[in-house]
Amino acid sequence: MPNLLGYNYIAGARSAAGSVALYSVDASTGETLPYRFTQATPDEVDAAAQAAEAAFPAYRHLPPERRAAFLDAIAEEIDLLDDTFVALVCRETALPEARIKGERARTSNQMRLFAQVLRRGEWLGARIDRAQPERQPLPRVDLRQCQVGIGPVAVFGASNFPLAFSTAGGDTAAALAAGCPVVFKAHSGHMATAECVADAIVRAAQRTGMPDGTFNMIFGGGVGEQLVKHPAIQAVGFTGSLKGGRALCDMAAARPQPIPVFAEMSSINPVVILPGALTRRGEGIAADLVASVVQGGGQFCTNPGLVIGLRSPAFSQFVEHLAGHMAEQPAQTMLNAGTLANYARGVAALHAHPRIHHLAGSSQQGLRAQPQLFQADARLLLLGDALLQEEVFGPATVLVEVADQAQLLQVLQSLHGQLTATLIAEPDDLQAFAPLVPVLERKAGRLLLNGYPTGVEVCDAMVHGGPYPATSDARGTSVGSLSINRFLRPVCYQNYPDALLPDALKDSNPLGIVRLVDGVQSAATVSRG
Amino acid sequence: MPNLLGYNYIAGARSAAGSVALYSVDASTGETLPYRFTQATPDEVDAAAQAAEAAFPAYRHLPPERRAAFLDAIAEEIDLLDDTFVALVCRETALPEARIKGERARTSNQMRLFAQVLRRGEWLGARIDRAQPERQPLPRVDLRQCQVGIGPVAVFGASNFPLAFSTAGGDTAAALAAGCPVVFKAHSGHMATAECVADAIVRAAQRTGMPDGTFNMIFGGGVGEQLVKHPAIQAVGFTGSLKGGRALCDMAAARPQPIPVFAEMSSINPVVILPGALTRRGEGIAADLVASVVQGGGQFCTNPGLVIGLRSPAFSQFVEHLAGHMAEQPAQTMLNAGTLANYARGVAALHAHPRIHHLAGSSQQGLRAQPQLFQADARLLLLGDALLQEEVFGPATVLVEVADQAQLLQVLQSLHGQLTATLIAEPDDLQAFAPLVPVLERKAGRLLLNGYPTGVEVCDAMVHGGPYPATSDARGTSVGSLSINRFLRPVCYQNYPDALLPDALKDSNPLGIVRLVDGVQSAATVSRG
Repeated sequence: MPNLLGYNYIAGARSAAGSVALYSVDASTGETLPYRFTQATPDEVDAAAQAAEAAFPAYRHLPPERRAAFLDAIAEEIDLLDDTFVALVCRETALPEARIKGERARTSNQMRLFAQVLRRGEWLGARIDRAQPERQPLPRVDLRQCQVGIGPVAVFGASNFPLAFSTAGGDTAAALAAGCPVVFKAHSGHMATAECVADAIVRAAQRTGMPDGTFNMIFGGGVGEQLVKHPAIQAVGFTGSLKGGRALCDMAAARPQPIPVFAEMSSINPVVILPGALTRRGEGIAADLVASVVQGGGQFCTNPGLVIGLRSPAFSQFVEHLAGHMAEQPAQTMLNAGTLANYARGVAALHAHPRIHHLAGSSQQGLRAQPQLFQADARLLLLGDALLQEEVFGPATVLVEVADQAQLLQVLQSLHGQLTATLIAEPDDLQAFAPLVPVLERKAGRLLLNGYPTGVEVCDAMVHGGPYPATSDARGTSVGSLSINRFLRPVCYQNYPDALLPDALKDSNPLGIVRLVDGVQSAATVSRG
Repeated sequence: MPNLLGYNYIAGARSAAGSVALYSVDASTGETLPYRFTQATPDEVDAAAQAAEAAFPAYRHLPPERRAAFLDAIAEEIDLLDDTFVALVCRETALPEARIKGERARTSNQMRLFAQVLRRGEWLGARIDRAQPERQPLPRVDLRQCQVGIGPVAVFGASNFPLAFSTAGGDTAAALAAGCPVVFKAHSGHMATAECVADAIVRAAQRTGMPDGTFNMIFGGGVGEQLVKHPAIQAVGFTGSLKGGRALCDMAAARPQPIPVFAEMSSINPVVILPGALTRRGEGIAADLVASVVQGGGQFCTNPGLVIGLRSPAFSQFVEHLAGHMAEQPAQTMLNAGTLANYARGVAALHAHPRIHHLAGSSQQGLRAQPQLFQADARLLLLGDALLQEEVFGPATVLVEVADQAQLLQVLQSLHGQLTATLIAEPDDLQAFAPLVPVLERKAGRLLLNGYPTGVEVCDAMVHGGPYPATSDARGTSVGSLSINRFLRPVCYQNYPDALLPDALKDSNPLGIVRLVDGVQSAATVSRG
């Protein structure tokens, strides 16, 4: 077991001025681990935000290559986190070793993707409209635009991805790439993990000469509110519950200076099984779907919580297969006691609903989550029943049988915003059900065909976002390279000489990037008239 | 004078179900014009939003070329609005004929710019990550992403630009280009103008076969709140006061589904006169600056409201020149009685402040605005005095003298967010005062050198935006082609066949656009593995 200080990370130093102690817990046994963390005091929260603000002028002005080298160094340091570290993460989260090793690789690769993005340069959004001194009736002056970091970003890590959506996760990577220092609020469910990763980031910052305060981390309950309200903070990244995310949004909107909050919150991720697929491979689909529902204890934002099919003998048989598979699934230890309690509450609410029927799953009791299958009347969705729209975080899913394509469209239209929407279909299904696609486009950030939504590739084309309440702002994504845009704002320079322009906009194009010059994309140098 | 119905525009028809009458007013005389408008009833506001929602599926799916043809047709119809129209706009706003003719050209050119943007295609943000079936440890499936319209947009026009920031103004153009139907709330200060422009849009929509409900317009006071709270509305564009904009933001944030509001609100647009420029051309700068302050009655969002210089005999002389020029400026009729009353209040507050001194300008009384020059103690800014941060909309500006570069930096750092920040400087000034630029970058959306901020070019590189309270979201611009981004959201398609993909993402690249394919920008076709 590593030796951990448990102090807050502020401006490149460690600080523990407070007296409130927090302890890390073994997720499987509930046993308190020998790691004591000191909750940040109000002064320390302020100091962390001030440190980020103090670092911002120097950090944002570093050449993109310097920040890329920093992100690459973080990736290297994360890859070096060893089996002791993996064992620690497993103890804090009850997630299996193979998953944590995979998540470690995903987290370091995510940093490397943003390093590539920085080197490619399209994130700079460079645009040059050259002077037109002869234009009538008025001449045009030289105008150039590029994107700059918005300022210090507060990041709230997720319970369910202790690495990829946490300390060095996607929000942190995107903010650091954008030139924004970060104040990370460690999740209470994996504080020891957070400390190890923060140490990796700090080592990388030191190796690559980053300003103190580029990365800060605070521990504690209740410190988040002060952080979001701090005047130095200019944007927020959050992954978690609808209740928690909405509370942060409301706080941020009520500030004297409102700031954007990118909260990834609640999604039931509908999966529609079309008739041709059902007929040809219903049994396999049932097995794959159950595997997706119970994978990782169902603790994924993209866990399929709603399965929709059209009434038919094949669908009835599919339901039987599904129920049979679900009944065979073992109970699983969840991330923490709070997650299990929420799951039990969600399952109990489904049990209690008079028009929702329980199809499979052992009684939910004890210290582990029992996988569950329910079936609901389609009319519940059409009548706007709130319960069916709510994410039950864990290994449960709800089946809905619709009468025909018309009712299927109505049911899909009744859904709130989603991270994902999936079609399981054969080519002839797609012809017959083509009108579904435009409806799904309005509901979700990612549309899948013949796959399961629980895998989220980190790449340029990924969207891990979607209309409310999947996220607080459908215009963002919290996975993939586009997520950098959330933390950027445009600045225009009018009639500025080369010497005062950012490199992205200089005549000689020293970064060698593609720019929009007089409306044409070009990597060429530009001349002034 | 044209013959006007005064009815609301809903789903391609006219509607006047209500009984509240509103009248257009001659801005110069206060006389009621013979135009009666019928305030939209709650049912009509609902119908307008529903019409936009009903049009959305068809409108957003039109090929970009179809929407470009629509915008070009609007431009043609606006260009055809004749001298009778120009005379009407002048009566409603008291703005001079040459200005309205210029604004007409600017408004139609803005539509044409967005038509070009649609044809160029970079707004689609197409990204393709091809499948890697052999990848270890897990294969990658085909992932493709592009931007789609966010949904129906509510637009609130500005008092001060009856054409370019109103019915067919920048927000409407950007939303329509993005594929989002619009519900426009006509400004009470120029409802007859709004009707003529709405008719032009409707003619263009009919000529080019746009769905009914693509453009809707409602009249009335208080109808805006219902519009912003309507569940069909997915984003808001607004240009106006800080109070009005913030109220809309607060309403939008408190909705069951919060939506983004892009409000362009309040900016004092600092102009810093550096010593070399002052010495070499102080007298000319004084004349140019006064001309910029009083232009159009000072009724520009980018009107220079704060002029900063360094203490020196040359600055004292400059102040005298400025006072002399300002004293010579004639009184001007403002856009409407409310604008004049607000100006009088703002000027009175400056007069009443014990540490702000009046330097030039006749006593503010009567029906026209008297240009005014004040001087304030720099320490007021450093102490956070609120009055100096507030925009006084009209032909007034406040001088501030600072002791040295250090105090200048402090004063600039004390400013709230701005649309623009201007340096008047010689090359040697720029070397000596280079540390100013990074400070200004944080404060404003557009940095000018040796120009005046009141001209806002409509082009790709323009940013008409900035940190709060200049706008509600520093990540947007309300002028220039980048403003389309406010109304777009990304959608990802995983493992989708060509037939179901938007044209932007098809293998054959039928739109011929540049796409990010496996991390490389390319206009080539793609093949599947």
